Amino acid sequence: MKVAGFDIGGANTDLAVIDFEDGEIKNIEVDFAYLPMWSNNDDLQKVLIDLIENVCPIDEIDAVGISMTAELVDAYDTKKDGVLDVVEKCEDTFDCPTAYVGIDGMLSKSEIEKTPLKAAAANWIATAQIATLISDNCIFIDTGSTTTDIIPIKEGKECAIGKSDFDRSATGELVYTGTLRTNLASFLDKVTLNDKEYRVASELFAQTADVYTVLGLISQEDYVCDTFDGEGKSKIECARRIARVVCADLEMISMEDVVELSKDIHQKQVEQIADGLKQVVEAQNLDLIVTTGLGKDILDRPAAELLGLEVKSMGDILTDEECVVAPAVGTAVMMEKYLI
Amino acid sequence: MKVAGFDIGGANTDLAVIDFEDGEIKNIEVDFAYLPMWSNNDDLQKVLIDLIENVCPIDEIDAVGISMTAELVDAYDTKKDGVLDVVEKCEDTFDCPTAYVGIDGMLSKSEIEKTPLKAAAANWIATAQIATLISDNCIFIDTGSTTTDIIPIKEGKECAIGKSDFDRSATGELVYTGTLRTNLASFLDKVTLNDKEYRVASELFAQTADVYTVLGLISQEDYVCDTFDGEGKSKIECARRIARVVCADLEMISMEDVVELSKDIHQKQVEQIADGLKQVVEAQNLDLIVTTGLGKDILDRPAAELLGLEVKSMGDILTDEECVVAPAVGTAVMMEKYLI
Repeated sequence: MKVAGFDIGGANTDLAVIDFEDGEIKNIEVDFAYLPMWSNNDDLQKVLIDLIENVCPIDEIDAVGISMTAELVDAYDTKKDGVLDVVEKCEDTFDCPTAYVGIDGMLSKSEIEKTPLKAAAANWIATAQIATLISDNCIFIDTGSTTTDIIPIKEGKECAIGKSDFDRSATGELVYTGTLRTNLASFLDKVTLNDKEYRVASELFAQTADVYTVLGLISQEDYVCDTFDGEGKSKIECARRIARVVCADLEMISMEDVVELSKDIHQKQVEQIADGLKQVVEAQNLDLIVTTGLGKDILDRPAAELLGLEVKSMGDILTDEECVVAPAVGTAVMMEKYLI
Repeated sequence: MKVAGFDIGGANTDLAVIDFEDGEIKNIEVDFAYLPMWSNNDDLQKVLIDLIENVCPIDEIDAVGISMTAELVDAYDTKKDGVLDVVEKCEDTFDCPTAYVGIDGMLSKSEIEKTPLKAAAANWIATAQIATLISDNCIFIDTGSTTTDIIPIKEGKECAIGKSDFDRSATGELVYTGTLRTNLASFLDKVTLNDKEYRVASELFAQTADVYTVLGLISQEDYVCDTFDGEGKSKIECARRIARVVCADLEMISMEDVVELSKDIHQKQVEQIADGLKQVVEAQNLDLIVTTGLGKDILDRPAAELLGLEVKSMGDILTDEECVVAPAVGTAVMMEKYLI
């Protein structure tokens, strides 16, 4: 049986197609597309179909599971409007059985129409499914392009204190910071260069993908989102954007200066994630961390190590590509169980 | 003699036309236009002419002084490119004598072509001219739509330690935060609601103009910039954007909650400005603060009072409308002196 799992985020839509044989995973194929839902959500159906067709003919798919976080984008007045719009578009797209990841498990279309908020930003529930394959008692941490989920698991079940994004931003279980799309100004007050502290410009000048490009921690293929100034993604273009964050340009500061700034920025983002992780660790009394997502080695491992915690990686059971779309993999797994 | 002073910022272009009689100010007229220079700098010439023509026929103007900060916008690879582009556009627009505010005083076109960076972000030099009319020994603070200048004056002369925006962001003399266009995520790490701390979403969801609209501290006419989501500027629409900053919507939190959040956000921006002000106060050993700009009563006075400092307002010698465009007024004053 072939099951597709989608994770429809604000900026990226991820897909995992899993081949199951007698309930066992035989094969996983993954893909993703950059789809800014705040401006282009009318393209969602086309993107869903194209993603599947890149993997296999759509009529080979027996069922589709969907998780989402896209309902938060400002194209929707309320999350409820966002969830219902995504569901309607998915239902119009697929003929096979479909269901949606909710905070208490999979939901059918009619269930979701009664309680749409249960499906809002529940993709971390799906990722938790995978983390339990590593350990029944752990905190898994998934830093994607935009956000970081930090989810405690006890006796094989997720036990997050917050259930909505709103609650989770208070408990430390959601830190709204990521490996690619995060505006540097959002987590920096001051940066250090040559032992001097500089305040930063509160514009949309540079994002974390620029910093990790300059530091050589991501490749040009990893940099899947748009640049803030519409220019290219080379190291020099990234450096130019980073210089602007301290009201400078590459005639005023050197490439070495930008590298020094980038190291400081990297460290500050690690500390931002560690702050959320510490809150979850203290609330749950757990000390094994399982990392996944694009930021697993760039941000999550250093954050866990900063707190002196033991670290395992979902990379032990998934490939790097699968780790990047872990919520989509988990969504397919949940959908297969739901069908039985 | 009629002299026009322009302050060409990244987002707003301000104008003051001053009638001088024997070197004395007889009359001031002011106006401003929203002109996003990162996307629409080709419209600059038209905006300059329209602004003047709203005040008086352009051939009545005897001279034009120009200060700028627009060279920082990301339409320009370097500040130098930005300065030279603005100068070229101004020279093409006016037939009467023109000159530019630089960090050491007014510069002609040919001087600026030799040392363009002297004119980069020098508009605070012009505002200092006005502050000296209040006191020869003070710190003036000008919070505009986007940034805050904090400039020490001793014995009637500005004595800022930093000269470029880059240096000034280290000395506290520039705090990149303002009354309208500042992304809330840029200065908030956590916000407090019902005694709970919430982390904020690092998106472009809401700006300070939304907060001061909800709190009734600015009017709809003051809200001259674009909204982040393209929706309107009513209190309810501002509240909806603010709710999104904590990953919520107006079905999850109430209007009273948004007001409580807004008060906390207001206080945190006051503290951000106070942090810069404190650094300047300690470096200069000055304790009289002179406020101007749109944020003079909303942000600057509370910041100065938080530090226990004496406060005077440029409102003692200028109208509120003139205070909002104080750098343009100062630019016209400098231009008149330059001609003599």
